[in-house]
Amino acid sequence: MPSYNPPLRDMQFVLHEVFNVAEDFKQMPAYAEVDADTINAVLEEGGKFASQVIQPLNISGDTEGCTLDKATHEVTPPKGYKEAYQQYIEGGWPALSCDPEYGGQGLPATINGCFYEMLNAANQAWTMYPGLSHGAYEALLAHGTDWQKKVYLPKLVSGEWTGTMCLTEPHCGTDLGLLRTKAEPDGDSYLISGEKIFISAGEHNMVDNIVHLVLARLPDAPAGSKGISLFAVPKFNVDENGTIGERNGIYCAGLEHKMGIHSNATAQLVLDKARGTLIGQPNKGLQAMFVMMNAARLGVGNQSLGLTEVAFQNALAYAKDRIQMRSLSGVKAKDKPADPIIVHPDVRRMLLTAKAYAEGGRALSVYAGMLLDKEHHHPDEKVRKDSGEILALLTPIVKAFLTENGFKATVECQQVFGGHGYIKEWGMEQFVRDARINMIYEGTNTVQALDLLGRKVLGNQGATLKKFGKEIAVFIEAEGVNEKMAEFINPLAMLADQMTKFTTEIGFRGFQNADEVGAAAFDYMKVAGHLVFAYMFARMAQVALQKIAEGNTDPFYQGKLQTARFYFAKLFPETLTLMKTARNGVKVLLDTDAALA
Amino acid sequence: MPSYNPPLRDMQFVLHEVFNVAEDFKQMPAYAEVDADTINAVLEEGGKFASQVIQPLNISGDTEGCTLDKATHEVTPPKGYKEAYQQYIEGGWPALSCDPEYGGQGLPATINGCFYEMLNAANQAWTMYPGLSHGAYEALLAHGTDWQKKVYLPKLVSGEWTGTMCLTEPHCGTDLGLLRTKAEPDGDSYLISGEKIFISAGEHNMVDNIVHLVLARLPDAPAGSKGISLFAVPKFNVDENGTIGERNGIYCAGLEHKMGIHSNATAQLVLDKARGTLIGQPNKGLQAMFVMMNAARLGVGNQSLGLTEVAFQNALAYAKDRIQMRSLSGVKAKDKPADPIIVHPDVRRMLLTAKAYAEGGRALSVYAGMLLDKEHHHPDEKVRKDSGEILALLTPIVKAFLTENGFKATVECQQVFGGHGYIKEWGMEQFVRDARINMIYEGTNTVQALDLLGRKVLGNQGATLKKFGKEIAVFIEAEGVNEKMAEFINPLAMLADQMTKFTTEIGFRGFQNADEVGAAAFDYMKVAGHLVFAYMFARMAQVALQKIAEGNTDPFYQGKLQTARFYFAKLFPETLTLMKTARNGVKVLLDTDAALA
Repeated sequence: MPSYNPPLRDMQFVLHEVFNVAEDFKQMPAYAEVDADTINAVLEEGGKFASQVIQPLNISGDTEGCTLDKATHEVTPPKGYKEAYQQYIEGGWPALSCDPEYGGQGLPATINGCFYEMLNAANQAWTMYPGLSHGAYEALLAHGTDWQKKVYLPKLVSGEWTGTMCLTEPHCGTDLGLLRTKAEPDGDSYLISGEKIFISAGEHNMVDNIVHLVLARLPDAPAGSKGISLFAVPKFNVDENGTIGERNGIYCAGLEHKMGIHSNATAQLVLDKARGTLIGQPNKGLQAMFVMMNAARLGVGNQSLGLTEVAFQNALAYAKDRIQMRSLSGVKAKDKPADPIIVHPDVRRMLLTAKAYAEGGRALSVYAGMLLDKEHHHPDEKVRKDSGEILALLTPIVKAFLTENGFKATVECQQVFGGHGYIKEWGMEQFVRDARINMIYEGTNTVQALDLLGRKVLGNQGATLKKFGKEIAVFIEAEGVNEKMAEFINPLAMLADQMTKFTTEIGFRGFQNADEVGAAAFDYMKVAGHLVFAYMFARMAQVALQKIAEGNTDPFYQGKLQTARFYFAKLFPETLTLMKTARNGVKVLLDTDAALA
Repeated sequence: MPSYNPPLRDMQFVLHEVFNVAEDFKQMPAYAEVDADTINAVLEEGGKFASQVIQPLNISGDTEGCTLDKATHEVTPPKGYKEAYQQYIEGGWPALSCDPEYGGQGLPATINGCFYEMLNAANQAWTMYPGLSHGAYEALLAHGTDWQKKVYLPKLVSGEWTGTMCLTEPHCGTDLGLLRTKAEPDGDSYLISGEKIFISAGEHNMVDNIVHLVLARLPDAPAGSKGISLFAVPKFNVDENGTIGERNGIYCAGLEHKMGIHSNATAQLVLDKARGTLIGQPNKGLQAMFVMMNAARLGVGNQSLGLTEVAFQNALAYAKDRIQMRSLSGVKAKDKPADPIIVHPDVRRMLLTAKAYAEGGRALSVYAGMLLDKEHHHPDEKVRKDSGEILALLTPIVKAFLTENGFKATVECQQVFGGHGYIKEWGMEQFVRDARINMIYEGTNTVQALDLLGRKVLGNQGATLKKFGKEIAVFIEAEGVNEKMAEFINPLAMLADQMTKFTTEIGFRGFQNADEVGAAAFDYMKVAGHLVFAYMFARMAQVALQKIAEGNTDPFYQGKLQTARFYFAKLFPETLTLMKTARNGVKVLLDTDAALA
């Protein structure tokens, strides 16, 4: 069975040494008291919960799955899940980054993100129960009526109730404009009928009530995505004191049989005149839902980050323990009948791939988290605005690049185990199966890539990209004189430079034929991901070099430099191919009717 | 549920139009009668068996898995498997490419390979039962005693009995030198004791007897891989007439719980003084087993080829059927509320990736199959020798490159389905899970890469590579004057040229430090794979262009050109990155003790 050690040292490095988050928090009135000690203490406790409470349930939960009682429509998660959730509530964890007005602890999103990385590493499927609740909390906080906030938020913050997001229907996922679920006005509220599928944490008996956020159409709604409204539909109706009443007409009709995340109840929900209340404005449901979606997209990147880390840790331990063959350059473990497989360069390639993806991803997640905190809490309006823009640019990168990397990393780590990697008991194959969904849900990675290139980059003629590029340029300028930084700065500077030309070129093609944008988007997203990772690794290397120069002998810093060197030598060169294939254009994709007949 | 149409048209194209195999067969006495009509008829019937008999069992078999009765040690495969196997025997399929002396039909390995592609596409896990038997047949045919051949071969050829290969033990897979299973002489035979794991098709009740080929050590055997012998150990002892006697001491102690290929019984076998007979010479068991292993490695490439094809077919059908969003360049399906997703360039990229991998892989499989047939049956000794050498070079490429590609292809095809791709009922996630094992077993892809670069290429100073390169050079020379071929010939010629320099450079580094070979091997294997694929696509394009020039209007030929163009524009450029990362060397992998502490 896999084990998990919360990567607290690396989190502290990223939070305090690279980004010095406490200094930034001091400037934000809401977080002025959040110092490094508080952060470290919270993450240490959070890491204990993750590794000691939910990690031991990961394989058993996957094996057992969820059970639907078709008579009562009730879903029972695997053994131990409810008890773990109870501990989660008792620890006050649901409230970590919530608004104190509703019972929250008021910590920054960045810290919650680090906590969630550990939960995801320990048990992604379990974590989706509170994860979806937190999304529902955010959407209601931003768009809910006073009544909804009063009734729902305290329960979501305490964790006594959970939440969901109900978007997908059998015939539409990406294209929500096609959705058919209907909402009929009935007094102050609405009666909602329709069918939803793929609803994560959609039904379970771990809590007394579930608040479903449901997209549906009003009777007079315009066709397409401009006629969609958002509703809060509780499993049990509630009065204004939050007292639970009769069962509402929203039922689990079936559980999906999935490749992974077995222990999360992915529900088919039937709404039969379920009573709900409108969230936000009529026909503006997608905008309200996007509050949740954007946070969820960062959260999905975070899921893969967690899986990358835990897969790496277990592959590393196995590679040190498993002996098989001798090193090509001569016997290394003379006292053993074979060398530990970590002596083989290709095994190290696999391990370091996962390690680099984890560390680059962690830095990016924290960086994005800080943008989110600044967007909402920085006193300076310009900082808020700039942070929001750059975060919008980075969100599809966090979602798509981290989930692509996470899948590759879990596959590489599984490969380290040889045949044992294919066996369930070792747990490595579960990481692969769980990681696979992250490339699909909350907008497929193709959708993310289109969002990045079409909307976030070309949508404002590269203005946001330039803004982000300027930050990188300042760093390059400052560190360009540091000879020891050359190996990290040079490739970063080169790609930053190429990126401008590359973007212009793709933009020009797209101007002539919009399909060129679609053809280039996926490659572009990965190139942009490498630009961001190169920046993150250069910043981390800069700190490590400085610590070493100061005489710090903690091998952590040497390790960081080694990982950065590996990244630039073995992963970053992917950009060569990606820019080439993007430039090879759309023709070979679209002039293929005979091939795809 | 997925469907499967045997790709007979493309097989015929590769067999007859590209390689003109019947002409080659005419020169081989054993196959002189094997003409195109015979081949086509066999494959048509074989395709029916695959698509009509075993394909419908693929999902149900995966869901049900195998059952071990711990009291009797008997294993029952899923419902329908035994009946399908019975039909397989009745159709004479096990005998297809077997020696007529033992009841075989004497068809070429190439044709059996095409048949197996269809079986693998339809149901990889089912196909492993007869597949392992065929491997056992080949090892016994090459190295068995007269008694073994007389007793075992007719039963394996008829399919009445099946076979296995028992190599792996809990502490060793790659490094068979560590194995511990012991064989004690006892009269004319041996009593074998030990523990084996991961034994595919290792126990089942579909046949009356199973012939296990078991690696074990004789009492006086030298340590390491030079002290391993191979034994035939039947489930039930047999006399010289093949009459079944008492149960032998080889028992299934457990079935592995795996990520995929659920319906194949992957057995833990305990040998407790099981009676067996020696195959080949004492202590030369690995050589005898390698007859089986080399064939099996081609077979594993073929498994991924089959999965690539079936995943492509289903993703293509889905992409035409599923409507979601509008084309970026304007509405395409005016009569529908959204366009079929095949209008999106990125969806086409995924589909064409799988199609190109399938078609390149099929051409390579047939090409390798012909080398195998020539190696064993060509009257000219030089042809036999050259064919054997080039096949030895290509075997690790077929195994590793096709399985890497197959995994990527099944993942891309799953992605085309969006959320539905994650749901078991659609069958796409099973292709991914099944394809995953192919990168691991029969020697991990790292082992294949080392075999290719270390042994097959550098082992004879690039002599075999040069021999193969000469064949490519002749083709380039002949087609270099054909202007229409330039788009295919130019990249091929460029890579062929670079490959020489690249190989020399890596060889030189390896000469200085053997670990450089280990560091470069995986990238090198993929570059070599692209060299072979580029050659295959150029040859296929050449035939297609010729047919079109002759006035043939079958859109198949346009489709072939389109796929080739896609391959060169979007997949082939991976070589840019691979050569760069290989050249970045071993230092960033090995100087990482702090990072991997």
